[in-house]
Amino acid sequence: MLTPRDENNEGDAMPMLKKPRYSSLSGQSTNITYQEHTISREERAAAVGRHEGFRGCTIWFTGLSGAGKTTISFALERTLNKLGIPCYGLDGDNIRHGLCKNLGFSKEDRQENIRRVAEVAKLFADSGMICLAAFISPFQEDRLDARKIHESENVKFIEVHVSTTLEVCEQRDPKPSELYKKARAGQILGFTGIDSAYEPPENAEIILDAGKDGVQQCVQKVLDHLESKGLLPEQIPDVPAVRELFVSDDLTVAELLKESQNLPTVELTKVDLQWLQVLAEGWATPLSGFMRERQYLQSMHFGQLLDLKHKVAFVGEKSDDKEDSWPMMDDINQSIPIVLPISDDVKKGLEGVTRIALKYNGQVYAILSDPEIFEHRKDERVCRQFGTNDPRHPAVAQVLESGNWLLGGDVAVVQKIQFNDGLDKYRKTPNELRAIFAEKNADAVFAFQLRNPIHNGHALLMRDTREKLLAEHKNPILLLHPLGGWTKDDDVPLDIRIKQHEAVIAERVLDPEWTVLSIFPSPMMYAGPTEVQWHARSRIAAGIQHYIVGRDPAGIQKPGSPDALYETTHGAKVLSMAPGLSALHILPFRVAAYDKTAKKMSFFDTSRKEDFENISGTKMRGLARNGDTPPEGFMAPTAWEVLAGYYKSLQNSN
Amino acid sequence: MLTPRDENNEGDAMPMLKKPRYSSLSGQSTNITYQEHTISREERAAAVGRHEGFRGCTIWFTGLSGAGKTTISFALERTLNKLGIPCYGLDGDNIRHGLCKNLGFSKEDRQENIRRVAEVAKLFADSGMICLAAFISPFQEDRLDARKIHESENVKFIEVHVSTTLEVCEQRDPKPSELYKKARAGQILGFTGIDSAYEPPENAEIILDAGKDGVQQCVQKVLDHLESKGLLPEQIPDVPAVRELFVSDDLTVAELLKESQNLPTVELTKVDLQWLQVLAEGWATPLSGFMRERQYLQSMHFGQLLDLKHKVAFVGEKSDDKEDSWPMMDDINQSIPIVLPISDDVKKGLEGVTRIALKYNGQVYAILSDPEIFEHRKDERVCRQFGTNDPRHPAVAQVLESGNWLLGGDVAVVQKIQFNDGLDKYRKTPNELRAIFAEKNADAVFAFQLRNPIHNGHALLMRDTREKLLAEHKNPILLLHPLGGWTKDDDVPLDIRIKQHEAVIAERVLDPEWTVLSIFPSPMMYAGPTEVQWHARSRIAAGIQHYIVGRDPAGIQKPGSPDALYETTHGAKVLSMAPGLSALHILPFRVAAYDKTAKKMSFFDTSRKEDFENISGTKMRGLARNGDTPPEGFMAPTAWEVLAGYYKSLQNSN
Repeated sequence: MLTPRDENNEGDAMPMLKKPRYSSLSGQSTNITYQEHTISREERAAAVGRHEGFRGCTIWFTGLSGAGKTTISFALERTLNKLGIPCYGLDGDNIRHGLCKNLGFSKEDRQENIRRVAEVAKLFADSGMICLAAFISPFQEDRLDARKIHESENVKFIEVHVSTTLEVCEQRDPKPSELYKKARAGQILGFTGIDSAYEPPENAEIILDAGKDGVQQCVQKVLDHLESKGLLPEQIPDVPAVRELFVSDDLTVAELLKESQNLPTVELTKVDLQWLQVLAEGWATPLSGFMRERQYLQSMHFGQLLDLKHKVAFVGEKSDDKEDSWPMMDDINQSIPIVLPISDDVKKGLEGVTRIALKYNGQVYAILSDPEIFEHRKDERVCRQFGTNDPRHPAVAQVLESGNWLLGGDVAVVQKIQFNDGLDKYRKTPNELRAIFAEKNADAVFAFQLRNPIHNGHALLMRDTREKLLAEHKNPILLLHPLGGWTKDDDVPLDIRIKQHEAVIAERVLDPEWTVLSIFPSPMMYAGPTEVQWHARSRIAAGIQHYIVGRDPAGIQKPGSPDALYETTHGAKVLSMAPGLSALHILPFRVAAYDKTAKKMSFFDTSRKEDFENISGTKMRGLARNGDTPPEGFMAPTAWEVLAGYYKSLQNSN
Repeated sequence: MLTPRDENNEGDAMPMLKKPRYSSLSGQSTNITYQEHTISREERAAAVGRHEGFRGCTIWFTGLSGAGKTTISFALERTLNKLGIPCYGLDGDNIRHGLCKNLGFSKEDRQENIRRVAEVAKLFADSGMICLAAFISPFQEDRLDARKIHESENVKFIEVHVSTTLEVCEQRDPKPSELYKKARAGQILGFTGIDSAYEPPENAEIILDAGKDGVQQCVQKVLDHLESKGLLPEQIPDVPAVRELFVSDDLTVAELLKESQNLPTVELTKVDLQWLQVLAEGWATPLSGFMRERQYLQSMHFGQLLDLKHKVAFVGEKSDDKEDSWPMMDDINQSIPIVLPISDDVKKGLEGVTRIALKYNGQVYAILSDPEIFEHRKDERVCRQFGTNDPRHPAVAQVLESGNWLLGGDVAVVQKIQFNDGLDKYRKTPNELRAIFAEKNADAVFAFQLRNPIHNGHALLMRDTREKLLAEHKNPILLLHPLGGWTKDDDVPLDIRIKQHEAVIAERVLDPEWTVLSIFPSPMMYAGPTEVQWHARSRIAAGIQHYIVGRDPAGIQKPGSPDALYETTHGAKVLSMAPGLSALHILPFRVAAYDKTAKKMSFFDTSRKEDFENISGTKMRGLARNGDTPPEGFMAPTAWEVLAGYYKSLQNSN
């Protein structure tokens, strides 16, 4: 149900008063309160023209007083502005006070009013803006004139009938004006719907039932129409769509599986399969498969995807002009390559083939088409990706040990990627997470990337972040998102971490009402500033707007040294500047330590340093192995038990 | 002298005919020919909003019929559009046919006409556009009203008096309308300037003497005013300005030199000095000095300059908000860091200082201010910049042997950087080169980066490139631009190369009419795909639009291997995709070899491979050492003598 704004600012809603005023060149429209536009000039200017192409047109809202025309048109203006589409609203505010201030409310003057508005709207549309005109405009003839003014000069005119019934409008009768009441009482004459006719449009492009549908639904309907007419950029940059690579219908899956029996096969490693999952579920939207050389070079040299063309032609050579049809409206951050290494032998077997089956453990997971094989320049790659080629770095070693070639190409994924380890229920795709957040009525989602057990300091940080977000949001939801792909041997394994996280939530250290625990399928790379961008960017697919980052994200010890490999501030610094992440708010990770006085984890306070004790991972492991418990308030007790059990079992197995 | 367009499309220029028509709501303005705007909607849309910031305002052109109002306003519209500034023109065309078609030419109607135009102009200005209104608007009162309409809502109104005298206007009296003639003959009544007064503005912001000045001068005057009011972006993105860091006036230089006596000093290496020259002359525009950590990280991770803020703050920390005022309109490619390494000892001496003298060989070259010292993570840097950390790579070695810290900060350069090696006359700055190209009436400049002797195959390529450019340009000029900074020991030294190039030009193998030989001051890095971007991007400062690239640009042998270090196609591929180079046309380097049949260098033809012989550098050096001459047509004979002499002297000194 739409609750309209006070609509007494609608120029042509102004009724003829009992003593009709004389319309003259010096005549003044009275009884019109001037209302500021809800979008400032600065906001408009920031939005103007983020997209290419001419989309000038006029959207003409007609309907009874109180129907919701202005409310919808203002909401639409805000949305278009967000999308970077230049638009400008005409309504009683800026028309009756200015251009039409010398018109009264006689039939002739009302006609002239509409005509002038239509002429001005046409000029705005001609200038390349979407012009939003919201006027009762009760007469079919006048609206047809307005249309003709546009169409005779080849300017698109979109009539929107806001068809809220008289009953609903009269019920609303917004204060303080209460125009319907006055009209019923005979204090106003010639009021549309009461004693003056409203002629509903016969050929309106859009009919909005704003008596039933909410504002956002109405706006969506207009957006859908604009989109169908090619007037919108195909993708909404602020709410990027998720590109899943799953084949959705069973028949096609069956056909592909049949086809795969005759295709050459590439056997995936577990890490390859994890990357396939990342791609399939849309975490790396808009990638359509494993990177071709073109996107690989873009990622290596610029940390971005710049386009989705297939071939990177040598200067002067012809390109094949193949290009993925997914729209690229904005910079896409892509600091890490997502590639499929293959060996010399596998490459030999793929010469001249156009489609390839990707298998893991004998099962077909995907068909790769339009393959491109290019050199896996491993030493150069690790240098650029990790800033080191030290083979003692476990992820660097993984790359250096992989195949000499990279196989790029589009993938069609024929089955959900699961691991049957009891944790698949936590493996939510970005779209599934979006649905969960919507169901929870989240109006903000903040993500916490982790690959370690949660102590109460972390929980404090997350609760504190939520408190801060509550200043501007009603229901911020936490995406507690442990990384679930490959990690180095001495990290705590995924199953233990999940049990530990479950215990933290069960003890309500993190409130299950606003916490969503899910597994992020990506393998770990320990690539510091390069990787943290991936951690943030990939979560955008799940609909997050806030990402928490601290010191040395995705960091690792420098091999053979006690120092960190990456400068510990670089991750957050690079993340804060990275192209393609402007939609994301980067939130600081505040460091908490054990507060011996308060007997709980508190944010570190330099003024009473001596009260704080840092309980390091090493210390924690020592306590666990010895069967000791950490200080009260360090970690939820049942969560501690999970960890203690794990470390004990490790000790036993050693 | 301004030759105006036919101005009979000026709405309010329309005179009252002898039989005054009745002004009614259905009245039609007659005698008005509709004229298409000179800028299409698509062109406008492409320009809309390339720049941030609100610059909505109205520029109101007033003046006699034939004064040049419309001509100037159209030219201004085109210029603003080129600059990416959204604007829209109102004039008789789009007003008299539409909004004001129900107005005649009575005094009252003329007033109302101007009022409506002013109201619409205000709306456009409010929407963020620059609105150009060109109307005779002869009466001071009406124009004051138009101003009030704007200023009462805080919208800028700029009145431009196009003050062409009646005599000039009447002389012009554009056909076919010949309105002045008709007015003089009494066929038209109430014609402004003849039998109706023109009241010149008393407080016009701008007065244009379009009877004397040309259109472009008039447009420039308006642009200057807009700029002074902060309504223009300061930099024109299509013709980027060069940012020199030289201190221009002698007095300041003297003061700085005096100050430097009391400043801490950093002694530059020769390579540092070469980088200082690069910065000082503006090759790295818009850098204001040696990179701070912020720009260093941008360069390392994204191959670009993203902004010119000083500090890169850790998330959650306060930034000092210092930002360089140079406008950053577009992506700036910056694939390589330009930094000043200092040792631990030098760093110790700089604690707490705010200004530092940069010296070379005891002479002060620059003052560095607002210094920032950050860690020179050398191994990480060479990995990211070179894709290798092999110390056998001579430029990698240079970095690895340099200081552990980087000193960033703004530099004010107090003297031209010269080397007194007899070659300084070839060291032209970007601005000097621009002046030379302008003097030669170049309408296209193509650059050839080289660090080797020129054989006739190169010359063939350059002549061929010029021929190709002649299809679209009248006078393409070649910037023959040998790199003059540090090179590895076994490259041919600069002085020999320049002598060799001089000989090639003296023999007119390259035509001196269209060849400009100049030295590019940058040191060499042999960083392949990363460096070729720098080679192309830096030359934009000199005003080039075309850059020639071939296989393995800025390449080097892989240490300890006969192979190239970089994949030989990557350079051109990366260059063709690199952000911030969209203004540049990348031209292919066509390979020429010695054609034994034709006895000259020809472009390699695969259909008659056997006719071609590749004369490698090794073979060439062998011939030179043995006192042999290469095959006829391989190289200009006097140029060969230079080389032969060099290699012989090398042999003797060994």
